[in-house]
Amino acid sequence: MNSKALADKIVDQMLDKDPFTKWLGIEIISIKEGSCELKMQIRDEMLNGFEIAHGGITFSMADSALAFASNSHGRICVSLETSISHTKPCKSGDIIYAKAEEKSITNKIAIYNITICNQEKEVVALFKGTVFRTDKLF
Amino acid sequence: MNSKALADKIVDQMLDKDPFTKWLGIEIISIKEGSCELKMQIRDEMLNGFEIAHGGITFSMADSALAFASNSHGRICVSLETSISHTKPCKSGDIIYAKAEEKSITNKIAIYNITICNQEKEVVALFKGTVFRTDKLF
Amino acid sequence: MNSKALADKIVDQMLDKDPFTKWLGIEIISIKEGSCELKMQIRDEMLNGFEIAHGGITFSMADSALAFASNSHGRICVSLETSISHTKPCKSGDIIYAKAEEKSITNKIAIYNITICNQEKEVVALFKGTVFRTDKLF
Amino acid sequence: MNSKALADKIVDQMLDKDPFTKWLGIEIISIKEGSCELKMQIRDEMLNGFEIAHGGITFSMADSALAFASNSHGRICVSLETSISHTKPCKSGDIIYAKAEEKSITNKIAIYNITICNQEKEVVALFKGTVFRTDKLF
Repeated sequence: MNSKALADKIVDQMLDKDPFTKWLGIEIISIKEGSCELKMQIRDEMLNGFEIAHGGITFSMADSALAFASNSHGRICVSLETSISHTKPCKSGDIIYAKAEEKSITNKIAIYNITICNQEKEVVALFKGTVFRTDKLF
Repeated sequence: MNSKALADKIVDQMLDKDPFTKWLGIEIISIKEGSCELKMQIRDEMLNGFEIAHGGITFSMADSALAFASNSHGRICVSLETSISHTKPCKSGDIIYAKAEEKSITNKIAIYNITICNQEKEVVALFKGTVFRTDKLF
Repeated sequence: MNSKALADKIVDQMLDKDPFTKWLGIEIISIKEGSCELKMQIRDEMLNGFEIAHGGITFSMADSALAFASNSHGRICVSLETSISHTKPCKSGDIIYAKAEEKSITNKIAIYNITICNQEKEVVALFKGTVFRTDKLF
Repeated sequence: MNSKALADKIVDQMLDKDPFTKWLGIEIISIKEGSCELKMQIRDEMLNGFEIAHGGITFSMADSALAFASNSHGRICVSLETSISHTKPCKSGDIIYAKAEEKSITNKIAIYNITICNQEKEVVALFKGTVFRTDKLF
């Protein structure tokens, strides 16, 4: 199996058993080794007391993107440190897109930047994630 | 109204209109000006593909704690930067507790540390959040 | 004065009175509104107990890049939150290059990614910085 | 050798060969397994263009504290991710104190909070650091 096929298989397997990513309604646009693009829509039940998406919603989407991108190499990865800046509010009905890019990878550690944009291509959140690459294989 | 009564009133008002914090099942244990303690239980629908709580769940709880603690002074605050380290996995059924502490506050900026523990008092996540304090009042 | 000339003037002015950036030996390769490229060489006195550059050296270079890029618009900016991941050690004699990119800018807040590479174009550090844009002008 | 004596010995050894920590003028107030307290004075050559300490100075002090606290257990640690918030400016002549606390430790990963205060006991910086604990011993 080539690396693209392996990445697809791993992410299918992860997504298949991931109830919270399903609750979020995340769809996979594309998967490659070390990167991915995801899509989801903001719903009323995702809002906070200010009628905008709760900060945890965009974080959760980015965290799923981090898991898919980092695990796509075939080794199970564990999140060590993640940070997010919310740059623009999201409203109910907005469609948002997350794009994960691998910025650094060594034997033990990999680092990803994930940018989330809305349907107007405006940046709504900037996320950075560091993972530990275990020796366990999928 | 004294500051404790104001903090209570603001958080009641925020929680009342916050569908995602309700979905999480967050209960308020205590509120004071600049701090709060929250409680929630991990449910099956909050798990990821590894049968542990999705990283977004503990982040979301901490982010709600950040909102409650920072807004409790009476000025509307906006999250600028938040980071989280997941130190131990949470399983379905676990009961987790978030405690927010104010580490720094100036006219425009405040910084909070939020520690999340499980029912065994083990730390499961360490969160740090920076907010911008707007001039808008509740 | 056009925006490029203003950016040049501001950074010249900042650098002129910045003893620590001078101690580091930072040279400016290019300045544009919202971005910059810097260069410096690792010296023996910058090393830590493991004979590699102290983590504070690459941080300091990135922090200077953050200051130059964010102030180049003409409003005085104050750093709120910065983070750095050291991805590869630097040795004495290494020449390192920092490149600042503006990822988000609003009236009050701007966010920058700064990547530091060595002479082999290997990434040695990834930095993210958030600044508060005051109303004071240069 | 007991754990306190080991911690002292390791830090002495690290400090002895650390030119940049010496340039900073860092003095050790106390060392224990997993924690330490440091002291230093801000000098003119540590200032930036606004006549306050360059952000890299307090970061460097905190990063040294992170190294001392994490290595004090006897295993060599590598910094993975560090972040700092500068909450108050430091001026030339100020004496600052860094206190490192271990917030989480597992076989591979440890997390520290480091608080820096000035001579008036005002918080000037809040730092969080995550290290990877290698298998190499001192």
